Amino acid sequence: MASQYLVTIDWGTSFLRAYLCELSKDAELRLIETQVGRGVSKCDGNFEQELLNCISSWIPQYGKLPVYMAGQISSSIGWQNTKYLPCPLAPKDIAFGGKSFSANGHDIYVLPGTSCEYPDQSFDVMRGEELQILGWMQLALAHETGKHILCLPGTHTKWVLVENGTIRLFKTAMTGELFDILSNSSVLIEEPNDNFDSKVFIEGAEYVLQGDAGDFSHDLFSVRTRQIQAQLTKQQATSYLSGILIGTDARAAQQSPYWEFDQVESIHIVGSIKLSKYFATVLGLMGYKSKTYDAKQTSLLGFASILKQRCLTNSTN
Amino acid sequence: MASQYLVTIDWGTSFLRAYLCELSKDAELRLIETQVGRGVSKCDGNFEQELLNCISSWIPQYGKLPVYMAGQISSSIGWQNTKYLPCPLAPKDIAFGGKSFSANGHDIYVLPGTSCEYPDQSFDVMRGEELQILGWMQLALAHETGKHILCLPGTHTKWVLVENGTIRLFKTAMTGELFDILSNSSVLIEEPNDNFDSKVFIEGAEYVLQGDAGDFSHDLFSVRTRQIQAQLTKQQATSYLSGILIGTDARAAQQSPYWEFDQVESIHIVGSIKLSKYFATVLGLMGYKSKTYDAKQTSLLGFASILKQRCLTNSTN
Repeated sequence: MASQYLVTIDWGTSFLRAYLCELSKDAELRLIETQVGRGVSKCDGNFEQELLNCISSWIPQYGKLPVYMAGQISSSIGWQNTKYLPCPLAPKDIAFGGKSFSANGHDIYVLPGTSCEYPDQSFDVMRGEELQILGWMQLALAHETGKHILCLPGTHTKWVLVENGTIRLFKTAMTGELFDILSNSSVLIEEPNDNFDSKVFIEGAEYVLQGDAGDFSHDLFSVRTRQIQAQLTKQQATSYLSGILIGTDARAAQQSPYWEFDQVESIHIVGSIKLSKYFATVLGLMGYKSKTYDAKQTSLLGFASILKQRCLTNSTN
Repeated sequence: MASQYLVTIDWGTSFLRAYLCELSKDAELRLIETQVGRGVSKCDGNFEQELLNCISSWIPQYGKLPVYMAGQISSSIGWQNTKYLPCPLAPKDIAFGGKSFSANGHDIYVLPGTSCEYPDQSFDVMRGEELQILGWMQLALAHETGKHILCLPGTHTKWVLVENGTIRLFKTAMTGELFDILSNSSVLIEEPNDNFDSKVFIEGAEYVLQGDAGDFSHDLFSVRTRQIQAQLTKQQATSYLSGILIGTDARAAQQSPYWEFDQVESIHIVGSIKLSKYFATVLGLMGYKSKTYDAKQTSLLGFASILKQRCLTNSTN
């Protein structure tokens, strides 16, 4: 595989993040430069123009670059709607199950979404987070065998069962989105703030973990009653709410009938440094060790995994 | 007790509703006229002026009327902050535990809030809904003996255990508020609408009732996945979400360790006609019969209960 340049893009609802990368001979991606553009819901359907705006400064030096895209850009509100591939899925399924097309002389590959169906006929979907799973698989040989649980916190948390290098099952919890709307639009928080208070975060999580599993909507109200009782200040309420939400999320994942936290090799968290730490803290309260990884780096490794699959296959043709 | 005129006021966060009433000789309240004003959070702290604006048209004919107020007007963001009285509470505790004051020649009585503390030291509060409980107690002699569960749906659902004519315990679930913010600010609902679809409402409730109790944040996501699978239209999504939320709420109440749905005399719902019907439907799916009552009428009966307590006591002084 010769060294080459390419663009990888994480194109979500709110932002487009384009990474100019060099693919080394041993299939590693080195990040050269980043450009940020408008997300899928912000660019009035002018996706091609938005892409060109972001990458145009690279063309004089590197020419028409191949582009690899993941995220909501391939959803029904995006540019090229790709189907949801059903689990179980191996990396090669994701590397070849998306859509290839050209725009303004650039060869573009956009990833598929993934889905899974449960025995009770409920259904779940993911779009974009697969990259982090593929990237995580690249991190150690041990990740390619046995059963592992991955937690991918974000707007929606994805809990994923990876078994022998394939994505077996996953489960979504709307934790990040609930945190945002409850922080900004509910009676619970008068003054949203970013000052994280570890002590009340843990109090929130422990309150949930010690209570009834089904009591979410009542547990939430404790954010207000604790302020009324002067057990919590307005400034602390945001951290306490976060503890309630992440406690509920992690406990629901642990109680899922579709995997056993006690019977997997290991538990891993791939997300922002901040969120990963919060989830690791709550898993710790529940008695589970976990390892954390930075989502951006892991996504880049995920693109490298896809390139490796596609280039290796091409070179054997 | 002589026939007399008075004003009863339900002064919530968003609206003030003032009712000119006649108190009959047998302590019944007859509604003569209604005025609507601005809620506690909408009148810039000018509470006295807002009250006078609402009742001024009645003064020429009826003079300086006694005023009875309930709701958020007595909270920390209101006019006169009354304390939370701890359960168990009899009607007379609420009739005398509030605050009396005068404004512009009107004698005003504002109700207390109520609170309850659980063995796990968690805490709950209510402010305004007590009226409906007192009113419901007036509806039948049978309500004054034995154990009964009351469900008061609204912005926050209150589930209340009434035993031998006293409020023993209650529990809040933020169901109505979650419905509002999820309908208007989340990825789940693209087009909020008021067309109630009974079939998908029941599907939402049954999905929850058949699943894991702790899975709220995942169950919510089914509002989106069912749209992706074309099992639910955009127009139906609001009704389905309502089923998810009310199913979760009613199941959590039923599973509370502090009362037994199977061991109470009866279950009653006091709320808007629409919401009461939704809760009764879900309780029916769970195998429980319930009776429904209109909240406005019941509130008026609650004020009558307070007047009866206060006037009877006064007349014996």
